Amino acid sequence: MPELRKDPIHGRWVIISTERGRRPSDFVTEERRSAGGFCPLCEGNEDRTPPEILAFRTNGTPPNSPGWTLRVVPNKFPALRVEGDLGREGEGIYDKMNGIGAHEVVIETPRHSETLATLPLKGVESVLWAYRSRIADLRGDQRLRYVLVFKNHGVSAGASLEHSHSQIIALPIVPRRVAEEIEGAKTYFQYKDRCVFCDIIRQELQQKKRIVSENRSFISVAPFASRFPFETWILPKIHYPSFEHMESSLYGEAAQILSDTLQRMNRVLNDPPYNYIIHTSSFLELENDHYHWHLEIMPKLTKVAGFEWGTGFYINPTPPEEAAAYMREVR
Amino acid sequence: MPELRKDPIHGRWVIISTERGRRPSDFVTEERRSAGGFCPLCEGNEDRTPPEILAFRTNGTPPNSPGWTLRVVPNKFPALRVEGDLGREGEGIYDKMNGIGAHEVVIETPRHSETLATLPLKGVESVLWAYRSRIADLRGDQRLRYVLVFKNHGVSAGASLEHSHSQIIALPIVPRRVAEEIEGAKTYFQYKDRCVFCDIIRQELQQKKRIVSENRSFISVAPFASRFPFETWILPKIHYPSFEHMESSLYGEAAQILSDTLQRMNRVLNDPPYNYIIHTSSFLELENDHYHWHLEIMPKLTKVAGFEWGTGFYINPTPPEEAAAYMREVR
Repeated sequence: MPELRKDPIHGRWVIISTERGRRPSDFVTEERRSAGGFCPLCEGNEDRTPPEILAFRTNGTPPNSPGWTLRVVPNKFPALRVEGDLGREGEGIYDKMNGIGAHEVVIETPRHSETLATLPLKGVESVLWAYRSRIADLRGDQRLRYVLVFKNHGVSAGASLEHSHSQIIALPIVPRRVAEEIEGAKTYFQYKDRCVFCDIIRQELQQKKRIVSENRSFISVAPFASRFPFETWILPKIHYPSFEHMESSLYGEAAQILSDTLQRMNRVLNDPPYNYIIHTSSFLELENDHYHWHLEIMPKLTKVAGFEWGTGFYINPTPPEEAAAYMREVR
Repeated sequence: MPELRKDPIHGRWVIISTERGRRPSDFVTEERRSAGGFCPLCEGNEDRTPPEILAFRTNGTPPNSPGWTLRVVPNKFPALRVEGDLGREGEGIYDKMNGIGAHEVVIETPRHSETLATLPLKGVESVLWAYRSRIADLRGDQRLRYVLVFKNHGVSAGASLEHSHSQIIALPIVPRRVAEEIEGAKTYFQYKDRCVFCDIIRQELQQKKRIVSENRSFISVAPFASRFPFETWILPKIHYPSFEHMESSLYGEAAQILSDTLQRMNRVLNDPPYNYIIHTSSFLELENDHYHWHLEIMPKLTKVAGFEWGTGFYINPTPPEEAAAYMREVR
């Protein structure tokens, strides 16, 4: 059973995944793993993943067989386990609990050569619908408090499989970085009676200099305090606290701006490795006035080093105004 | 002038180093930069660095010439600038200030082939004395609040120069991660009237299972909630809030345990890339009962990916008890 452990000073939680148990020699070959060969996520290899939780299929093909456009399966090497209770306990001054939660993989396309940026819009929209459906389902589990949707694209962004996929992790606690963001948004709201994200959107639409692209309901923007070169956020213009609670008609537009932004990034930076994450409200307050869901894209162009680890402070060599100009002008 | 910008939601600061201004094409060649060729940090090339701030020299050789065992010089491409005032101002809802601070490089040895792990103990001790001397000096600047000492070893840990060196950055604010750690330690102290680090040391010395090595005044330990495989912390057994305020006789022992720990790491993990940082008290409260300086070593064996960025939560595939056992048994 994986273990959740809490740092007694900082209050930060860590997942110690005892079952993957890596020895020193396992790290040496890391870089070579993703090179070529068999792919368990390709169509036809459905028996090489755990049985599917959700799939979009055409022509009524049976589960775990070919004929799908998207599949969601449990992660074969999950960081957290669904079975069991939280088992909160202490060990002297230390606190720990069982690593309860869910860890799922969204296989975004049956074809190995496709990426989220090259998928037709309909395919990108399916991915967003799959996220929504899984979040809504996981919310039913009373032990869980938060769900994070994220994507690692490219080896140096941490992708261990090349085939286009994203991941969903549901957690028994609201993770610190999210809690801090929610807290910050709450404080702002208490002071101003306005959502800080709505204010950001308003100012960005006025100033225009950090806007990357825009459609009727969304903007894509290089944030004022970008941590990374070409960091880009996507936000709905209307105040929606939770990703999974948007009006159905908006997922198509969300797919359009996500696809457009990734394509611009590929053009400007030549298919860079990247991570993206969706930040949404916690299960404890799905509807609220202060938090506003958004998607953060972080191209992996620089290395995070001692200074960042030591301070939580980032050094970004590319001003977001310049990054946005490059991204705006391409296409 | 570099700019400090504050994220309006999270309160996180970022350094936008406008002068380094990286264009999209600059990132492509990143991996190749450190390969071979001329080294500005080697003995004999003193004119290729800015003039030295501090040097340990034998035989009274003049500044900025050969004959040194250690030099401290300003970073040629500083993330922050010493000259100017803070210039705090707003831009609509956003806050920023000038990037005032210091950014220095400690050249740990005149010889290119040496590393901190292969330096004689005397050399390692000199490095720690250089840190102490620079921190004490920077404290005199009323605009500054915190100084971070850190080291990036190896290309994938972010080192852009191969020659063994560490860096010192002095900041006009206490960075968030440090502030949180200090706050956490303060809360613990208020509750228990004991330093949380002292309690950790006590429990680790009793349990023994996460101890890597030990001498009279220090322990080296794999922390209970290690974020990374083989993460190792060094702490003084006696309560010292600030690195630069230890009794003079202790720097030799600190050098011994640092050298010993790095050598063990090299044996177990085959000279891995790593970062280390020194966490010490802020300039505002150099003497206190709740905070305890320490050095955190983070080998760079896994990739930080979407999940970690999204949550501030880490997945560590190697339990610290196993890592400590490997580290203890080698040699």
